[in-house]
Amino acid sequence: MNSFEKLEALVKQGKHICVGLDTDIKKIPSIVRKSSNPFYEFNRLIVESTITEAAAYKLNFAFYESHGLEGFTVLRKTVELIRSKREDVLIIGDAKRGDIGNTSMMYAKAIFDELGFDCSTIAPYMGKDSLDPFFEYEGKINFILVLTSNKGSEDFEKLLLSDGTALYKSVLQKIKSWYPANQLGTVFGATRIENLKEDIDDLKGTTVLVPGVGAQGGSAGEVASIFHSAGHRNFLINSSRNIIYASQEEDFASSAYDELQKLNREVNQISHSV
Amino acid sequence: MNSFEKLEALVKQGKHICVGLDTDIKKIPSIVRKSSNPFYEFNRLIVESTITEAAAYKLNFAFYESHGLEGFTVLRKTVELIRSKREDVLIIGDAKRGDIGNTSMMYAKAIFDELGFDCSTIAPYMGKDSLDPFFEYEGKINFILVLTSNKGSEDFEKLLLSDGTALYKSVLQKIKSWYPANQLGTVFGATRIENLKEDIDDLKGTTVLVPGVGAQGGSAGEVASIFHSAGHRNFLINSSRNIIYASQEEDFASSAYDELQKLNREVNQISHSV
Repeated sequence: MNSFEKLEALVKQGKHICVGLDTDIKKIPSIVRKSSNPFYEFNRLIVESTITEAAAYKLNFAFYESHGLEGFTVLRKTVELIRSKREDVLIIGDAKRGDIGNTSMMYAKAIFDELGFDCSTIAPYMGKDSLDPFFEYEGKINFILVLTSNKGSEDFEKLLLSDGTALYKSVLQKIKSWYPANQLGTVFGATRIENLKEDIDDLKGTTVLVPGVGAQGGSAGEVASIFHSAGHRNFLINSSRNIIYASQEEDFASSAYDELQKLNREVNQISHSV
Repeated sequence: MNSFEKLEALVKQGKHICVGLDTDIKKIPSIVRKSSNPFYEFNRLIVESTITEAAAYKLNFAFYESHGLEGFTVLRKTVELIRSKREDVLIIGDAKRGDIGNTSMMYAKAIFDELGFDCSTIAPYMGKDSLDPFFEYEGKINFILVLTSNKGSEDFEKLLLSDGTALYKSVLQKIKSWYPANQLGTVFGATRIENLKEDIDDLKGTTVLVPGVGAQGGSAGEVASIFHSAGHRNFLINSSRNIIYASQEEDFASSAYDELQKLNREVNQISHSV
């Protein structure tokens, strides 16, 4: 199964939640910190507890790179672990890369060949030839930043162009004209609920990765309802801190599962009520 | 010495050339490929040959990440090697990162604390709060993408905003208003000579990293003359492939030195003729 086929199968099962493994050694429960390899051990316990109910896992490269070689090893081992537990879950390499063509080609190689991810995240500033090398990998989904969930999205993403549309809308239009729907993903922040409503129709033809649910604000139910109302089923809602740090006690892994299931219910109650 | 003091000292010595260590195992001379660790060995020989005359080295992360753990080890060892040879040369971590605040903080930690670079490159799309964490490291220079040297720079960077200015000019204005000159760098492609002439005055208040000389087109002499005419001395001209792959024979390291010196002469002849 390629990544888009996996996505379609997950969506049919009502699975839309992406577990963000933003693993910060300072935030993991003290009980795990006592083990010999706490960084990997935390990921292992979270993955094993949530694997049956997650649609996807997103590994945020920054959290691993900041630990040098050890972090790189944990990144790789975590991908292998998830893959060994379930073939049909999506694994997203959240690296937000983007550079000139021959460099982007190397980044794509790192994410897809070297580390074995199903999906990447990429930054659009440098234009089409900086994105193309990622799309040369057939069977992968690349999530391009469109509108992000942070305050800084006002600085450039929302600037109005000479034709009166915002920059992020131009990004969305162009990438849709460049890439096929089964490879094209978009990142669209859930802290921008009004924008999500406004742009939901334009987001069709892309698989939408929605960050900003939970710690950054925004509700999974509200997001899901906008997608369902528009008849757009190809979306993933990412939650990182709310799931993986649901508890600091011994029950942290089962609490992560409970939090994931709470989000799954929110998304699917909406789905049934539409 | 912090990074800006290093830069000022280098510029006084007429040193403006940055050697881009885009080390591609497929392109290194066959004589090096026979050694036990050809990837690092190539970097070592290039660095040892060029160290007295280079202003900076730029390590393009993609070329290292695509080799997984081995690449990461070579990246780290190369930084340590350069540092051990010369304290006053600038080492640029060319990673083009950029993400929400807590993630950018981790990327900055990886580049400055974990790997020990003097400078980073960052992508501006996500706005100020995605850039701020890099500037919290005092004594470092962060080169923000303004106008890049690839064809794709037409797609978004050059889009006109509602006030009639191009997006990249708005990026330049805003980052100058956010960050002090001794920390602020800009990436401005040398394939855009007309734009460099047009924007040279606006680039003051930033240290400019100019890629696109050599393999991508543009001439070091022409670029230097624009800077010198404007009285702007804080610029680095990057050349990667033209220097490090100057020869495929046994003399590859001395050829790299010769190519570097050719560029140094181009830049300084211009300097004296102004």
